[in-house]
Amino acid sequence: MSSYWSELTASLVPYVPGEQPKDQRYIKLNTNENPYPPSPKAIKAIQEAANADLRLYPDPTCEDLRVVLADYYGLSKEHIFVGNGSDEILAFAFPAFFSASKPILFPDITYTFYPVYAKLYGLPYETIATDDSFNIDPAMYRIPNGGIVIPNPNAPTARYMLTDYLREILDANREQVVIVDEAYIDFGGESVVPFVKDYPNLLVVQTLSKSRSLAGLRVGMALGHPDLIEGLNRIKNSFNSYTLDRLALAGAVASIEDRVYFEETNRKVIATRERSCEAVRQIGFEVIESKANFLFMTHPSQSAKEIFATLKDRGILVRYFDKPRIERYLRVSIGTDDEMDAFVAALREIAS
Amino acid sequence: MSSYWSELTASLVPYVPGEQPKDQRYIKLNTNENPYPPSPKAIKAIQEAANADLRLYPDPTCEDLRVVLADYYGLSKEHIFVGNGSDEILAFAFPAFFSASKPILFPDITYTFYPVYAKLYGLPYETIATDDSFNIDPAMYRIPNGGIVIPNPNAPTARYMLTDYLREILDANREQVVIVDEAYIDFGGESVVPFVKDYPNLLVVQTLSKSRSLAGLRVGMALGHPDLIEGLNRIKNSFNSYTLDRLALAGAVASIEDRVYFEETNRKVIATRERSCEAVRQIGFEVIESKANFLFMTHPSQSAKEIFATLKDRGILVRYFDKPRIERYLRVSIGTDDEMDAFVAALREIAS
Repeated sequence: MSSYWSELTASLVPYVPGEQPKDQRYIKLNTNENPYPPSPKAIKAIQEAANADLRLYPDPTCEDLRVVLADYYGLSKEHIFVGNGSDEILAFAFPAFFSASKPILFPDITYTFYPVYAKLYGLPYETIATDDSFNIDPAMYRIPNGGIVIPNPNAPTARYMLTDYLREILDANREQVVIVDEAYIDFGGESVVPFVKDYPNLLVVQTLSKSRSLAGLRVGMALGHPDLIEGLNRIKNSFNSYTLDRLALAGAVASIEDRVYFEETNRKVIATRERSCEAVRQIGFEVIESKANFLFMTHPSQSAKEIFATLKDRGILVRYFDKPRIERYLRVSIGTDDEMDAFVAALREIAS
Repeated sequence: MSSYWSELTASLVPYVPGEQPKDQRYIKLNTNENPYPPSPKAIKAIQEAANADLRLYPDPTCEDLRVVLADYYGLSKEHIFVGNGSDEILAFAFPAFFSASKPILFPDITYTFYPVYAKLYGLPYETIATDDSFNIDPAMYRIPNGGIVIPNPNAPTARYMLTDYLREILDANREQVVIVDEAYIDFGGESVVPFVKDYPNLLVVQTLSKSRSLAGLRVGMALGHPDLIEGLNRIKNSFNSYTLDRLALAGAVASIEDRVYFEETNRKVIATRERSCEAVRQIGFEVIESKANFLFMTHPSQSAKEIFATLKDRGILVRYFDKPRIERYLRVSIGTDDEMDAFVAALREIAS
């Protein structure tokens, strides 16, 4: 606390990212990173972009990347916004589309950055209860609101929602912007990107951090009606004209273009997820069916907090949230088959 | 305009960055980029960091870079914040330290992003008139205010202020944060970084975009009392935990460590600036004495707007601001000797 801070600064409760330990080499299953490296073509493109042109500003409109994404999604570049990770895009979207007059709605159990953004901009919000199995009920999103954020699949629950339910939410809220946060959509879910042309109130947010193994490059994208994209650009250009550096732009283009590598990596992550899910269920854990690159799991009699601590002692890092409703759960990112075998073996010893 | 925009979005007048033309190869003297490439060590470090670890998030605390910067400036890492360019740091600093209750003060002629930040966060501001030669008078910064932003050297005027004057402003405003924006300080000015230990209200902002030839990498830094740094971190961690990617972190560390290259490049830019300044004065331009990597110049009888357009037709891009008080001026970034010779030759033809 400092007398130089604004009231806002003093009032904030910032987001806490997952541990990035430096002290030892963990089996790192705590921040939903992809266990496989990015496309070799992306790495090569970055190495080539590391040249004398770094003295020049990057393209502030990120046009090349937007053109490649437009082609990939079957949209036009006017439908596409890119940012420094999907977190930055969400940080622009909240003030771009939401106001102090009506609350933003999002699920009670979800990405914990949503309420942080709301507080940063002084925007009211209401959380909508998920059911006992963490399902989102579209009918509950019919109350008056100033905008909606729905992650699909949800995090940390991994709960996936059929796109028909999202259509129901979009239909019931045509006057407000509905953000569908699809950070984890590539691991088996169906995207609502095809809805973009029908719903001018839909903004879909995705990222290269998970399914494209580029958490370290900081690139996310938003897809929506050109009016929404222009709204995002107005905020961005009041904040920082050049949010993506030349290396991120080059790497992202090459990554999106390498569809074969992308599909192969996702297939491997999904196969390992299904294997791991089956294995931890056999140990006695309840696991929510996942369409993401992580599992959300609980044991009927054992403490999640203690399992988390014991795993950490054994060099396996998973994520534990000491929060109401989910304090009995662990979130475990999908690693390689070897990493998951080590995790399952440790869990078997700890939990039996 | 869209019904989905917030009132804020509709009210914004975003910043307009200098042209990044794609249509042809210009002699590009319009965005104050450095004509020399970044340190070869920075390029090598980036190429080496383009590896499988890009699948992992970067260090959200940017510790390695902060340690290197602390060593460079003779401070501790707790005095240092890094961000996605100095623009992002300023975008965090405005809400971190300024409030709606009292106006922010900055010069009337200055970086046009300052009022944009203020509007983004709904913060009132007052501009303080510079004199006819664009000098900043410290005595005018004694009126009630909620914080001050002073660029030194100023942009686009290039006008440099002795640090004693900045001390006067700091002394007169001990209750508020004074941001000194030193984006151009390395081209011959004296930094106020040594004041950081004496003034808990001082935040110095610098960048790797200009003197380190890394505009394309997006790295800036702020130096100040640990309480101010913590304030910046509270805003940042309510916005985006990972603003610097792994490549930017690696490149920035190597760049800061290569002092020899840095000093050599700056010497060259300064020598070219002095030569160019003399040459354009001989043509009949009035040029403000510059401690930056650009010249701010006016001709007693010729239209700056027309010269700008004619230069552009000839493939030479400079910056023209069609704004009161400076509509007779051109801002010209310092290029290589060859580029400046071409610029001076063209100017001689146009303006005589």
